[in-house]
Amino acid sequence: MAEAFRAALARAAEDSQALLRERLAAHDLPVARAMEHAVTGGKGLRGFLVLEGAALHGVDRAAALRPAAGIEALHAYSLVHDDLPAMDDDELRRGRPTVHVAWDEATAILAGDALQSLAFELCADPGVGPHRADLCLSLARASGIAGMVGGQARDIMAESAAEPLDLERITELQQGKTGALIRWSAEAGPVMAGADPSAMGRYATALGLAFQIADDILDVEGDAAKMGKAVRKDAGAGKATFVSLLGLDAARARAAELVEAACDALAPYGEGAATLRDAARFVIARES
Amino acid sequence: MAEAFRAALARAAEDSQALLRERLAAHDLPVARAMEHAVTGGKGLRGFLVLEGAALHGVDRAAALRPAAGIEALHAYSLVHDDLPAMDDDELRRGRPTVHVAWDEATAILAGDALQSLAFELCADPGVGPHRADLCLSLARASGIAGMVGGQARDIMAESAAEPLDLERITELQQGKTGALIRWSAEAGPVMAGADPSAMGRYATALGLAFQIADDILDVEGDAAKMGKAVRKDAGAGKATFVSLLGLDAARARAAELVEAACDALAPYGEGAATLRDAARFVIARES
Repeated sequence: MAEAFRAALARAAEDSQALLRERLAAHDLPVARAMEHAVTGGKGLRGFLVLEGAALHGVDRAAALRPAAGIEALHAYSLVHDDLPAMDDDELRRGRPTVHVAWDEATAILAGDALQSLAFELCADPGVGPHRADLCLSLARASGIAGMVGGQARDIMAESAAEPLDLERITELQQGKTGALIRWSAEAGPVMAGADPSAMGRYATALGLAFQIADDILDVEGDAAKMGKAVRKDAGAGKATFVSLLGLDAARARAAELVEAACDALAPYGEGAATLRDAARFVIARES
Repeated sequence: MAEAFRAALARAAEDSQALLRERLAAHDLPVARAMEHAVTGGKGLRGFLVLEGAALHGVDRAAALRPAAGIEALHAYSLVHDDLPAMDDDELRRGRPTVHVAWDEATAILAGDALQSLAFELCADPGVGPHRADLCLSLARASGIAGMVGGQARDIMAESAAEPLDLERITELQQGKTGALIRWSAEAGPVMAGADPSAMGRYATALGLAFQIADDILDVEGDAAKMGKAVRKDAGAGKATFVSLLGLDAARARAAELVEAACDALAPYGEGAATLRDAARFVIARES
């Protein structure tokens, strides 16, 4: 069954990236090439969650592929801007040069900006169906000051704070920074179907937190070559993380509990949600 | 009647900015204060166009105020990112320090990003009515690679091009860079009403081009104190503009012709569009 998950994840990444490349091919500008670069090579976890949630609610795959590609575009924009010299100043992403290194800073700023527009263009597409406006509204909330950008801003403030964050504050930060988009992705399928998204929402909240704890563990234990990006940046910066607050063993145990909670939340879907359960197990077992 | 236009423009700016401040007040983060700073002091021309177009089509003002505030947020995001050191590197905007000067670059990047999200949040608001998804879709197109960002990217490329742009290319650049959002603003009212936006679209196309020519004239003739930003940047950078290509007198004549064309396009609305005609005359008469 883990095999089925890996195949579904790979297909989600491939199909999302193909749709994004198709949308960008017509534009004969360096910034369009930079956007293609930025969306290439992602694991596609967020797009996968959209497609799986949609399938569980009987939503047509072609319709769901638009928001799946949209959330991958939005995630890519956040990485391009995060990597800028004024932010995390990273030169490597997914084993390749970051956009501002391969092009320049102005192109990276514009590519990120246009990837955000493209995300909304895909979610607002008439082919998405009658609930496309609700998808746009929830994506705007998940990505903005109350969601992802709010989390990023808290993350930056934490770096210069007098005292390191405690567990409550770091959880709040995570729920914005990485949690909000993961939750949006899981809820998109039921939202498209006009169904109750609360089971998928509970799944995603636990999944997103487990994902962040796993990220913190990888930052300590990971292999930069496998991850395709710099590691041990948090410890070097003296930043509080789930690992620095809990210790490695307790962080691992907490992530495993959260994966169980994520799987339990899928009970209403029965065996149909087996691939989503495997996805939850994957986020703490991954090496990159 | 020009008095009525000035009053309507001031009210549009005030009401849009009040709604944006209301949405941001709940967020206790420096980036939220930076967003408020960025939306303060704008003339509100784009929001005014939304509200006037909505009024002409019988759309409730409270409903139209959301996209009016949304387009002002989106315009503000474009200015915040444009002013960054890696882009135009401006320290003054509307007579006050730019966001990256008053805060820092990271905050300016995030404030711009979250202002874009806020623009879509306002357009997707259920209070906008049954056509909110169409507003989101057209805003995504107008702001992205096929619209504003595409125009900005062409503008940057023109700076390092071997030959200055010709009139056709500079018109194409303008239609993206400033034209797309002005057109979206004018069309938003009819779109909200489910009506034909083509008369407003023709008005806005002529208006947007006149606006850019006037901007180029102001860059040559304007008073930095009145404009609240640096002037004579284009000539200094050796950039082709409507003034460098046509000369001052012909540029002024072309702008006046375009204002006439904009007014003519409003014929289907009769006397109801008098304020919009005054708006067209204003864009070439303004001193800032």
